Amino acid sequence: MRIAQVAPLFERVPPVTYGGTERVVAYLTDALVELGHDVTLFASGDSRTRAKLVSAAPRSLRLDTARRDTMAPQILELDQVSRMAPRFDVIHFHTGFLHLPMARQLPAATVTTMHGRLDIDELAPLMQDVADAPFVSISNHQRLPYPAQNWCATVYHGLPPRLLPFQLATGDYAAFVGRISPEKRVDRAIEIARRAGLELRIAAKIDEADREYYEREIAHLMTQPHVRYLGEIGEAEKAELLGGARALLFPIDWPEPFGMVVIEALSCGTPVLAWPEGSVPELIEPWVNGWIVDSIEAAVEALAHADAIDRRACRATFEKRFTAERMARDYVAVYKRLRDTTRGFEARTA
Amino acid sequence: MRIAQVAPLFERVPPVTYGGTERVVAYLTDALVELGHDVTLFASGDSRTRAKLVSAAPRSLRLDTARRDTMAPQILELDQVSRMAPRFDVIHFHTGFLHLPMARQLPAATVTTMHGRLDIDELAPLMQDVADAPFVSISNHQRLPYPAQNWCATVYHGLPPRLLPFQLATGDYAAFVGRISPEKRVDRAIEIARRAGLELRIAAKIDEADREYYEREIAHLMTQPHVRYLGEIGEAEKAELLGGARALLFPIDWPEPFGMVVIEALSCGTPVLAWPEGSVPELIEPWVNGWIVDSIEAAVEALAHADAIDRRACRATFEKRFTAERMARDYVAVYKRLRDTTRGFEARTA
Repeated sequence: MRIAQVAPLFERVPPVTYGGTERVVAYLTDALVELGHDVTLFASGDSRTRAKLVSAAPRSLRLDTARRDTMAPQILELDQVSRMAPRFDVIHFHTGFLHLPMARQLPAATVTTMHGRLDIDELAPLMQDVADAPFVSISNHQRLPYPAQNWCATVYHGLPPRLLPFQLATGDYAAFVGRISPEKRVDRAIEIARRAGLELRIAAKIDEADREYYEREIAHLMTQPHVRYLGEIGEAEKAELLGGARALLFPIDWPEPFGMVVIEALSCGTPVLAWPEGSVPELIEPWVNGWIVDSIEAAVEALAHADAIDRRACRATFEKRFTAERMARDYVAVYKRLRDTTRGFEARTA
Repeated sequence: MRIAQVAPLFERVPPVTYGGTERVVAYLTDALVELGHDVTLFASGDSRTRAKLVSAAPRSLRLDTARRDTMAPQILELDQVSRMAPRFDVIHFHTGFLHLPMARQLPAATVTTMHGRLDIDELAPLMQDVADAPFVSISNHQRLPYPAQNWCATVYHGLPPRLLPFQLATGDYAAFVGRISPEKRVDRAIEIARRAGLELRIAAKIDEADREYYEREIAHLMTQPHVRYLGEIGEAEKAELLGGARALLFPIDWPEPFGMVVIEALSCGTPVLAWPEGSVPELIEPWVNGWIVDSIEAAVEALAHADAIDRRACRATFEKRFTAERMARDYVAVYKRLRDTTRGFEARTA
């Protein structure tokens, strides 16, 4: 198929460090090329891809600090798509809502993956207006605020299988990977590890917006002897940290729409201990690849029996459900259905 | 004709105080209704119009301070236009660039009035990409950075003729109306008035961005006895201030794409003393409705002979060239040409 992938311009594809959406677009795009499709990627000019690259900005907007206007390149990208649309069987957008008024009119089938949380009141009038737009959700839970939307499928994210290698033997610690923010609840992770008698290694960035929260709620917890703070880490260090952990602690307190670190841990064979929020019940099979708990006590109890989980089984759930190839095949099924039935948003008339 | 006007959502149409674009849209829309056209206005819900109103936001975004996301309603507005497009002969956008990737695809003729300055380097890649988009300029000068764009016409702004009434007798002062900012050069106006022996009445807002400039460069000039600062003023006070002035001082130092206050003064019969920047040579006929000068000395010399200009002649240039009806008729000519030859951006095939 002739497929367009339209990425945001804020990070390159894949991102240098953080940037969930652009990372998924990178894995998906390369996996589609691997499957033999003719793929064009719309993304910043510093992106690295096996697809044909079309760029509305030479550098990712986040790195181009001299730039004052970040809207012009985003509009330019959409207009590049608008002009090239007849060349594609399907155009897959990862650009939030910005493209939807245009996508409705395009002479190709279109689909949009929603990458963020949707339970935000200010989105309601727009979501109702675009109820006919073909959307893919990244978990079934993500759909809950808008059950009547034109959802085409849930497609879970996937990773290249060799990115974070399986590791059988582990160290004597648990891991926390993410942002230090109220919804991620690193405080819960610290307390669980303390009571379980485990070291906790924390790889996390602290956004400016969360600095006050960190100082007020978290900083004093970090000085405990069982806590080791690693700062922000790169891809190679992440493989080592996750691969060597007894468990990933994921005690979230918000409706996480997916949670990339969960499948990163599973790729290493590391089970995930998580609270039952957002996508978690869809990703974790209790006592197969992790535990779903809703209290510190239950978490400590689960970790006491961590040996009952076979790390090979964790990796097996990754290989079955969370590889980039599985993600690409799921999307291709969506693309084919849309290509054969719709143009833009409209059902094709025969 | 069935005409859509698409306004920004930041101010209501017309604005409560400042808001150049939304003010022009208001005058144009009501004048088109007056001419008998079937007009639909896309604008904030607090707008006041004789057209049919379609609103993507109940209140103008600037007044809705509780709102965190201003992009969602702008996208919603464009999607309302996208869905309703088949109902219109022509869709006239005043929304910058945001709509262009969509407008290219619409099943109706479209045109975009550029309301701002275009000599900004970061716009260049986008402007080149949309070189085929039908644009209207608000002065010929505005086009200079992009002569190869698909310019359909220059249409000067216009005002309802009774908004700022003609006044024959004047007071003994000159007026300055605008923002206190480096490009407006209120310092020049203050010096001209001082040397000409005239009081200067200043109606101007000071934006946060210009506060430091004001304190450093302007504040000490304002304490002179011939200067009277009125702050921001409303429409009624503006009529009184401009109508009673010997002259409007408009000593700008930037490529002003139009300059609404120039025609507001002319509506009152007040001549305009201006520097030859941007649109000025297109609006001002020397010694008929004002003076074009490029030094303080020449400005003082001109004001010494202010009596040589007949205020009735100033008003006559307004009635001939700058009424809302003339603006509406000019736009209708553009609309008809586009309706008969194009859809979206494309020339219609017969």
